[in-house]
Amino acid sequence: MSLNTFGHLFRVTTWGESHGPALGATVDGCPPGVALDEAMIQHWLDRRKPGQSKYTTQRREADAVRILSGVYEGRTTGTPVQLMIENTDQRSKDYGEIAGKFRPGHADITYWLKYGIRDPRGGGRSSARETAARVAAGSVAREALKLLAPEVRISGYMVQMGRLRADRDRFDMGEVERNPFWSPDAAAAAIWAAHLDELRKSGNSVGAVIEVVASGVPAGLGAPVYGKLDTDLAAAMMSINAVKGVEIGAGMGAAELTGTENADEIFMGNDGKPRFSSNHAGGILGGISTGQDLVVRFAVKPTSSILAPRRTITVAGEETGIVTKGRHDPCVGIRAVPVGEAMMACVILDHLLLHRGQIGDAGGRIG
Amino acid sequence: MSLNTFGHLFRVTTWGESHGPALGATVDGCPPGVALDEAMIQHWLDRRKPGQSKYTTQRREADAVRILSGVYEGRTTGTPVQLMIENTDQRSKDYGEIAGKFRPGHADITYWLKYGIRDPRGGGRSSARETAARVAAGSVAREALKLLAPEVRISGYMVQMGRLRADRDRFDMGEVERNPFWSPDAAAAAIWAAHLDELRKSGNSVGAVIEVVASGVPAGLGAPVYGKLDTDLAAAMMSINAVKGVEIGAGMGAAELTGTENADEIFMGNDGKPRFSSNHAGGILGGISTGQDLVVRFAVKPTSSILAPRRTITVAGEETGIVTKGRHDPCVGIRAVPVGEAMMACVILDHLLLHRGQIGDAGGRIG
Amino acid sequence: MSLNTFGHLFRVTTWGESHGPALGATVDGCPPGVALDEAMIQHWLDRRKPGQSKYTTQRREADAVRILSGVYEGRTTGTPVQLMIENTDQRSKDYGEIAGKFRPGHADITYWLKYGIRDPRGGGRSSARETAARVAAGSVAREALKLLAPEVRISGYMVQMGRLRADRDRFDMGEVERNPFWSPDAAAAAIWAAHLDELRKSGNSVGAVIEVVASGVPAGLGAPVYGKLDTDLAAAMMSINAVKGVEIGAGMGAAELTGTENADEIFMGNDGKPRFSSNHAGGILGGISTGQDLVVRFAVKPTSSILAPRRTITVAGEETGIVTKGRHDPCVGIRAVPVGEAMMACVILDHLLLHRGQIGDAGGRIG
Amino acid sequence: MSLNTFGHLFRVTTWGESHGPALGATVDGCPPGVALDEAMIQHWLDRRKPGQSKYTTQRREADAVRILSGVYEGRTTGTPVQLMIENTDQRSKDYGEIAGKFRPGHADITYWLKYGIRDPRGGGRSSARETAARVAAGSVAREALKLLAPEVRISGYMVQMGRLRADRDRFDMGEVERNPFWSPDAAAAAIWAAHLDELRKSGNSVGAVIEVVASGVPAGLGAPVYGKLDTDLAAAMMSINAVKGVEIGAGMGAAELTGTENADEIFMGNDGKPRFSSNHAGGILGGISTGQDLVVRFAVKPTSSILAPRRTITVAGEETGIVTKGRHDPCVGIRAVPVGEAMMACVILDHLLLHRGQIGDAGGRIG
Repeated sequence: MSLNTFGHLFRVTTWGESHGPALGATVDGCPPGVALDEAMIQHWLDRRKPGQSKYTTQRREADAVRILSGVYEGRTTGTPVQLMIENTDQRSKDYGEIAGKFRPGHADITYWLKYGIRDPRGGGRSSARETAARVAAGSVAREALKLLAPEVRISGYMVQMGRLRADRDRFDMGEVERNPFWSPDAAAAAIWAAHLDELRKSGNSVGAVIEVVASGVPAGLGAPVYGKLDTDLAAAMMSINAVKGVEIGAGMGAAELTGTENADEIFMGNDGKPRFSSNHAGGILGGISTGQDLVVRFAVKPTSSILAPRRTITVAGEETGIVTKGRHDPCVGIRAVPVGEAMMACVILDHLLLHRGQIGDAGGRIG
Repeated sequence: MSLNTFGHLFRVTTWGESHGPALGATVDGCPPGVALDEAMIQHWLDRRKPGQSKYTTQRREADAVRILSGVYEGRTTGTPVQLMIENTDQRSKDYGEIAGKFRPGHADITYWLKYGIRDPRGGGRSSARETAARVAAGSVAREALKLLAPEVRISGYMVQMGRLRADRDRFDMGEVERNPFWSPDAAAAAIWAAHLDELRKSGNSVGAVIEVVASGVPAGLGAPVYGKLDTDLAAAMMSINAVKGVEIGAGMGAAELTGTENADEIFMGNDGKPRFSSNHAGGILGGISTGQDLVVRFAVKPTSSILAPRRTITVAGEETGIVTKGRHDPCVGIRAVPVGEAMMACVILDHLLLHRGQIGDAGGRIG
Repeated sequence: MSLNTFGHLFRVTTWGESHGPALGATVDGCPPGVALDEAMIQHWLDRRKPGQSKYTTQRREADAVRILSGVYEGRTTGTPVQLMIENTDQRSKDYGEIAGKFRPGHADITYWLKYGIRDPRGGGRSSARETAARVAAGSVAREALKLLAPEVRISGYMVQMGRLRADRDRFDMGEVERNPFWSPDAAAAAIWAAHLDELRKSGNSVGAVIEVVASGVPAGLGAPVYGKLDTDLAAAMMSINAVKGVEIGAGMGAAELTGTENADEIFMGNDGKPRFSSNHAGGILGGISTGQDLVVRFAVKPTSSILAPRRTITVAGEETGIVTKGRHDPCVGIRAVPVGEAMMACVILDHLLLHRGQIGDAGGRIG
Repeated sequence: MSLNTFGHLFRVTTWGESHGPALGATVDGCPPGVALDEAMIQHWLDRRKPGQSKYTTQRREADAVRILSGVYEGRTTGTPVQLMIENTDQRSKDYGEIAGKFRPGHADITYWLKYGIRDPRGGGRSSARETAARVAAGSVAREALKLLAPEVRISGYMVQMGRLRADRDRFDMGEVERNPFWSPDAAAAAIWAAHLDELRKSGNSVGAVIEVVASGVPAGLGAPVYGKLDTDLAAAMMSINAVKGVEIGAGMGAAELTGTENADEIFMGNDGKPRFSSNHAGGILGGISTGQDLVVRFAVKPTSSILAPRRTITVAGEETGIVTKGRHDPCVGIRAVPVGEAMMACVILDHLLLHRGQIGDAGGRIG
């Protein structure tokens, strides 16, 4: 990762500010021959798009993507794919007050301290709006995966809002698309809805935990010791706005286990491939995929833009108070679901290409 | 990060296997003029060295480091610093059985599936022994920080073993060096000792949570959006053997907070610098340091090498059982403390250089 | 350099095809606070623009650049600067025949063999049109250099067309902007004009040598041994379309010198800085700048698109002939002058940032 | 390329100074399963070793390489290969005078200006001794190529010494190993021998041009537009000590050609692969290999260490004179031959892996 670029061979550079003319992603290293058009990308962008339920910001953005390069007659050519999304709804008057004050919990103060200049309109580069570019890039990765590893399936969902956890015994993946929280637990979704209504009315916000699972991932992806698959997944998820923690498999809970509890025993499956008695490893051992499901979770902090007045300072160093009006997500974790999926897709594709580059077909076989 | 290299400008490539002739770190991009000799590095290596208490592996390694390049008359020259540690205690007979079987929870199976060849002696490249090279590299970073940001202090300690958590009300940093667990809570250390004695006798192991805090870190380090300071810290910690989760500040717990609870309010300090009412952010907003303490935690899974028999398969695809003898850490998290500190030092120095490169003195001032 | 990206800290990724909707450059790592607007960039783009004299292609492109990100109120913010140039004149009917045949000397055949798909319209990604994005990015580097190293001056000019060499005794830098060949030798320009008229009429083309000189470059830029300043300059120039050779200082001619002839003796200047009796080194010793003028030359092959019929093959493997009609530069080297300048600007800025990052003010002084 | 590292997937980091304890190469990204032992590497190191004829430095170095990691039972494991060469003959007394004076044509002054500290013993990091590490790394690349592209053959030879050029009509590749200059023209070798005897006696030195050709390179290697094969070859060769110019195919001479002369016409070979009427392109079109021979030439300047007194300055800024005694190569270009071959091997392997990573088997076919 290098400032605004992530990935080794499949490299994504995102660019753009919340209220500038446009934002997007420069995608380099995509394999050639991948079927790609704007509708395919739009499908995924629409899932992240604001204003789709009362639980997300009411900012209206078409989030219409244009492919500016790298595609010829509906297929990628192997050259950089430029994806551009124009910003259309830029009510910068909403953001007048914050040009001179630093919003607590926001990047306002750090951008100022770092750069000596900042674009205050909508948070500029630090806006969650940047994640639209990730979703666009992720959709390219998804299409490439269809070609190279068609058995890969990626699904993200919310497993916790505030202190309210979904119940894994009630998980039904069919529910995920049926509620505004991408919850596989319909009962939890109903409880969250009520909880969020209350928070929204009081101008407050709340955090969440998102889980992203990828099945069908070939064994052998990843590399010692700084190009580990879990290292790159952790980096990918932590780079998403507002994320404060990342877990693989058992995650932080691994600390609570004993060795006998934690070890995933190994068997032979009927298909001649290894099977495991459990998946505390989250599909990764020694930084390399086992062929089990990749399981990643990340915590999203509560939206910092809240109506409750907070104490802060001005650029001039004066202490003051601030109320963040505007149109904000009461639980920004909701819209992080498609973003986490997109990052998962990018990391898997990147490691698939890396593996093919270094190893080709020289991997080991069992039996 | 690129396979075995991490860092942008301060780049560390580690190399070597557990039972090969030697292992080490190639450190490129170190600033010139940094005072450095072998004793300075040895000081930190000795903290990680096995066999120092009954709670760590009884393998005897001198872990004596040699500087092979990049230093002239006791100061770095700005050229690559090669640090080599020879392996002296290589009882590979201990590892005979595992050449043909995959140890559950280990990288044996994934290295095989990826590479079609693996060095089974002591886990080869996936051995925790690799972390000695990190500690050596981290000690170079520490010396460079003394020159460039002398106010930086890094301290790591254990905050949880299994389900037993240290009590922050009892924290006394003076205790950290006085018990074999690097615990700031002396009472917890005593409890952990008893717990670990029991586990060790039963041939079992347990996980742990490590916290690493850096104070005195200048504001402004890090960069949007994939070169974020927290992104690189997450990657650095997740790349350590056996780590399954990483948290910044409030971490996974951020999900449980509301916006009003989470927002760290901002004040002016007497020194004219911003102060914060709390540090849920872990010292990072928008990927850029605030000047507060950097707070990182990571969970280390229990050692997978346990005496209890586990079910597994052979390279030939036969189901079998395995008992991992040998000299193993019952709580590998203990020795992860100096490793976490080393990674923190490397990431801070790297971002300090990156910041100086792009920004120089052009950062913003308050007041 | 990584596929479509060059630079270490100041990183430029160009994207786009000759006849796609647009092309451009994603510029990451630019220092903040640099004055920048579209007119500043347009100034340099206009120098490269086709159709400015009868000696360049008659394709009409406005080459109007739009800044889509990274600039706020006329200054760079330190975040990615996206520069987009829309393609307006896309007569793809001109290119009908070449979809199925490979033009000798062109990348048609290698793109096909590599990717299994190619955009035949105007050469797609391999078109010299890509260099517009370089010039745009280079203009950002120039503005940053004004801020960080205001004494740097970059000037490119043609020193040879075909076998006709300019005479250094007649060099007058004031002439460079006064003839269509960027020649500092007015007499040579007149001769070249006549020569090119003849070639153009016969549908032929010719090669050229371009020299780019940068004065005012601080000593100390560059780094051993693969981040050498000359290494990066060679890569930068060789990456320009149609370039087949790169020289630093004495260049290939250095082979003909003896040690006594070649060694640039060192003196003290009145300003307390080192002076050299000559500049065979081209301003670089051991990969690091001496403070003398950086002197780079590169050879541009003749345009491969010529009217004379050439033998070639089709995708189907049939032997055939081809005549490349369309609007082509008879001496593509002419328009390479601003491109070489742009690459020089990017490399100098990148190394300035790298040097500041690793070294800061710790460089050595003489006297 | 990043300071002391080159390569994208096959990444080589060299380290070490001329008179430090050791030097070497950290080779990351090597494919697994490559047969490798120290004797294989030694074979190539011995070709570069000093003191083999009266025409190279009389410094005696065993240049004995040790493999410290990444190899198990005679095959690479896919983890970093550490190659170490200990320095044994370190007559640093020879170098006493130069600690305070800057040798003209050497990196003494630029290392000082850059770093504020330098290792004066034998030129430290800027010594041509560093190239031993390149040859060692290159030999790993050669063995990997034997596995992945066994038809690749790399041969380097000298084509010019001073103003004396070898005659291509007399080229006999069988002669290359039979004379101390790696000359394919036996008559030229005899003339060079006499010329060099004379120069050596007078304490002078001379430059040279080396050509390196690779045959059997698959079509399709390289990538637009900054990861071009010729870009990386130019960077690789220019990074070798004392190199001042690099040419691909027709090279600087391409400037003298017309389009009709330059275009390599295309035919179908009997084997169903494209054939070309000539190879002005040096095997590369649009940055991508055509399947023809890769042809690279580079100019090596005369050794700057000469007995003739030269004017220079001291660190204190005083003007003085200097005579460089010690044991130096009168034509350092001779020993650059195996170095150029090594760089060629590294670049080809790296691009082979890159191509396999992004493209796999998706390349296009003709016929």
